[in-house]
Amino acid sequence: MISHNIKTVGWLGLFLLGFVSATAQETTNKTEQILNQMTDEILVNGKVYGNLTELLNNGPRLTGSKKADEAARWAAEKMKSYGFDKVYLQPVMVPKWERGSISKATAIINRKKENLTIVALGLSVGTPKGGVEGEVIEVKQLSELDELGEKLKGKIVFFNRAFDEKLVNTFSAYGGAVDQRSAGPSRAAKYGAIATVVRSMTNRTDHHPHTGVLRYLDGIPKIPASAITTLDADRLSKWLKENKSVRLKIELDCRNFPDVQSYNVVGEITGSELPQEIVLVGGHLDSWDLSPGAHDNGSGCMQSMEVLRTFKALNIHPKRTLRAVLFMSEEVGGIGGIEYAKQAKLKMENHVAAIETDRGGFAPIGFTIQSNDSVFAKITSWKPYFRRLLADDFVKGGGGTDIGPLADQGAVLLGLFPEPQRYFDYHHSNNDNIDAVNPRELKLGAAALTQMIYLLSENGI
Amino acid sequence: MISHNIKTVGWLGLFLLGFVSATAQETTNKTEQILNQMTDEILVNGKVYGNLTELLNNGPRLTGSKKADEAARWAAEKMKSYGFDKVYLQPVMVPKWERGSISKATAIINRKKENLTIVALGLSVGTPKGGVEGEVIEVKQLSELDELGEKLKGKIVFFNRAFDEKLVNTFSAYGGAVDQRSAGPSRAAKYGAIATVVRSMTNRTDHHPHTGVLRYLDGIPKIPASAITTLDADRLSKWLKENKSVRLKIELDCRNFPDVQSYNVVGEITGSELPQEIVLVGGHLDSWDLSPGAHDNGSGCMQSMEVLRTFKALNIHPKRTLRAVLFMSEEVGGIGGIEYAKQAKLKMENHVAAIETDRGGFAPIGFTIQSNDSVFAKITSWKPYFRRLLADDFVKGGGGTDIGPLADQGAVLLGLFPEPQRYFDYHHSNNDNIDAVNPRELKLGAAALTQMIYLLSENGI
Repeated sequence: MISHNIKTVGWLGLFLLGFVSATAQETTNKTEQILNQMTDEILVNGKVYGNLTELLNNGPRLTGSKKADEAARWAAEKMKSYGFDKVYLQPVMVPKWERGSISKATAIINRKKENLTIVALGLSVGTPKGGVEGEVIEVKQLSELDELGEKLKGKIVFFNRAFDEKLVNTFSAYGGAVDQRSAGPSRAAKYGAIATVVRSMTNRTDHHPHTGVLRYLDGIPKIPASAITTLDADRLSKWLKENKSVRLKIELDCRNFPDVQSYNVVGEITGSELPQEIVLVGGHLDSWDLSPGAHDNGSGCMQSMEVLRTFKALNIHPKRTLRAVLFMSEEVGGIGGIEYAKQAKLKMENHVAAIETDRGGFAPIGFTIQSNDSVFAKITSWKPYFRRLLADDFVKGGGGTDIGPLADQGAVLLGLFPEPQRYFDYHHSNNDNIDAVNPRELKLGAAALTQMIYLLSENGI
Repeated sequence: MISHNIKTVGWLGLFLLGFVSATAQETTNKTEQILNQMTDEILVNGKVYGNLTELLNNGPRLTGSKKADEAARWAAEKMKSYGFDKVYLQPVMVPKWERGSISKATAIINRKKENLTIVALGLSVGTPKGGVEGEVIEVKQLSELDELGEKLKGKIVFFNRAFDEKLVNTFSAYGGAVDQRSAGPSRAAKYGAIATVVRSMTNRTDHHPHTGVLRYLDGIPKIPASAITTLDADRLSKWLKENKSVRLKIELDCRNFPDVQSYNVVGEITGSELPQEIVLVGGHLDSWDLSPGAHDNGSGCMQSMEVLRTFKALNIHPKRTLRAVLFMSEEVGGIGGIEYAKQAKLKMENHVAAIETDRGGFAPIGFTIQSNDSVFAKITSWKPYFRRLLADDFVKGGGGTDIGPLADQGAVLLGLFPEPQRYFDYHHSNNDNIDAVNPRELKLGAAALTQMIYLLSENGI
């Protein structure tokens, strides 16, 4: 009898276990089925690459420019054409800066002159007409400026610290070099330097100069600041080693203007069960002016639109409200993201989670997740769904510049994490064009985002 | 006293535990240190990209051609210059085929003529002078040929099954389409077809035709076989839908010649403790003739050389013997790999493991491993060492064509597994050139290989 009882209990237990696990399995299977449909839709019928081509064909989208506003209106129309439930332009005041038409640099080595390829950094003031000229001092660390002190007076500072090639994540290499570009000009001006040039922020040794924003400190003279190609940086450094004195003459006619009104673009699918809870996916619509910003960040904007388009195409009604947001002026102050979070707070909106895609349209390898441990564990439990996409590498890390201000309002932040080797080949340069984008890599990124948005929408945080 | 005893035992236990785990930790730390040195060497001082540039500058390396032999001698000299302990050319008889200078195709739609871009498939016979002409029949599956049967007589068969875009691993998509290219011609000729054209094996819709080998069956007439660009395949398919009859005229002057002698290139570092046990890394030196084969497979050859160069540069003496093997004629019959395994068997060599790198010089995401479960578990236990490289995705799967024949001799086979989205953009086409290769991606592949070869050499299987 004992054995009989055991058998009975055992059988019942197995039955119950089977029942529970069958139900869990059904949910898992149903989720997997929907996620697979979404990914199939994007891989087979995806609009993200075609839309990116269309966006880029209209040219660069420098914040504060007419082209940036045109792109915002174009994107809003595109969202409407996909039947998003709400589409609107959110006004935001942004900086306006223009490169002008003169970007000249000549090195004078003894009596020999050599032209160098430079571009003004974003927000840089121009030089006086005819340019500035001075002796060049090469530094690798900003701290060297403090040691040099008064010796910098009247000089042109050449920042030449290269990317650390040992860092596999190129974003870390960028993070370890970009202080030269952003903080270098004011740090040099403090001691009387008259201009700066910085080695372009890239792993490649090539002939493409890379721009990017600088930050002038209050109370310090604003001096003209530019970036030089990595090839020219190597030449200039060589001349400095070989000669007692190398002079540079730099002429730039870039200019700053008063702020102007521009827009974030917001598209929404209203949640069917919990419409007050918002799950956001976004990138930034503004680009630098040297190219139309295929990876930085047309790709992220078109992927964000593709996420919501896929829900509409498959007639999937998300529990929570989904928003695709194309932020303006990320490149210059992250201003669109700040304004969006400000408005969200004023309207007492509840953003439960936000994903940013601003690391290029390359094949996704996973997500960075900015959350506490239990939320991280919950999101990480979804990894098997991302195996098909080879995008199941989930690590702790920041979401991104534009969604960062939402952290204070309790949003869990995620960042799409694509393979990072090629990003800085194109970043802020004249070669960030459609031919730098592989259609399937772009689509896979959109698929990973769509799957994650679905899981966040259905499961919450 | 009891508590005292417990404390004593506890303390002793902790001490012993600490001792054991410190030793294990030291080994792990030492291994990690060496692996990091290797990766640093490749990322900072790597020769793999420069060598690839040099190799490609000498042009395509079609098996049986003078250029292929030149490349073999060049590679052997390069290996000697790095101080490898043994370097030799291993003779192997290979097929010789030449494309000739004529690859023409014209579609005749009613009375309109349209030129199409085609390339002969490898080993294809040419057409009679003046070409062949016939009505086109489009098929997607080889089984349709059996259904059509006698209707194929005098016709030109157009194989137009595209890659399955839903497959994230493009090698699976290739595997699902390539029967049209390799087996299609003889299957069509069996029923009297006079020529075949196949949709190029690629995910892209573009203007690059992709060649590749075919296999004629004995006893069936050899008919001329070519590949058409995906753009032209779409056009041709459209014309066929819109018109009752579309004819094709095809002219090719490709030719087969008797086999000639060529070489595998073998470079070795002799093991310091177990020289009889061989750990191999290799790729194939021959390319197709339309481009110099940057990804397919100059990259793999230069990575294999880089692995052994790194040991020499860092003065690391491996326990087991390391071999870099550049196989000839992988593209046409995998003949170099077969010959290498045959010679290894004759010499009673003991290959404990072999890694092939022939999936392109893209960022590595891990390895495929062809082994039993316990070996798979052992290799998988090394995953943490590959975290730095973002290449810790280890899955069961084949090693590759060239090392495949070593499986019978007990070798564990591995394949480097790079990100697969872009491979078939270039594969067997005229655009597989140096500008399709990102230097850092290529280096990271070399680093992953070097780390794995070190672990296999020091730990065995």
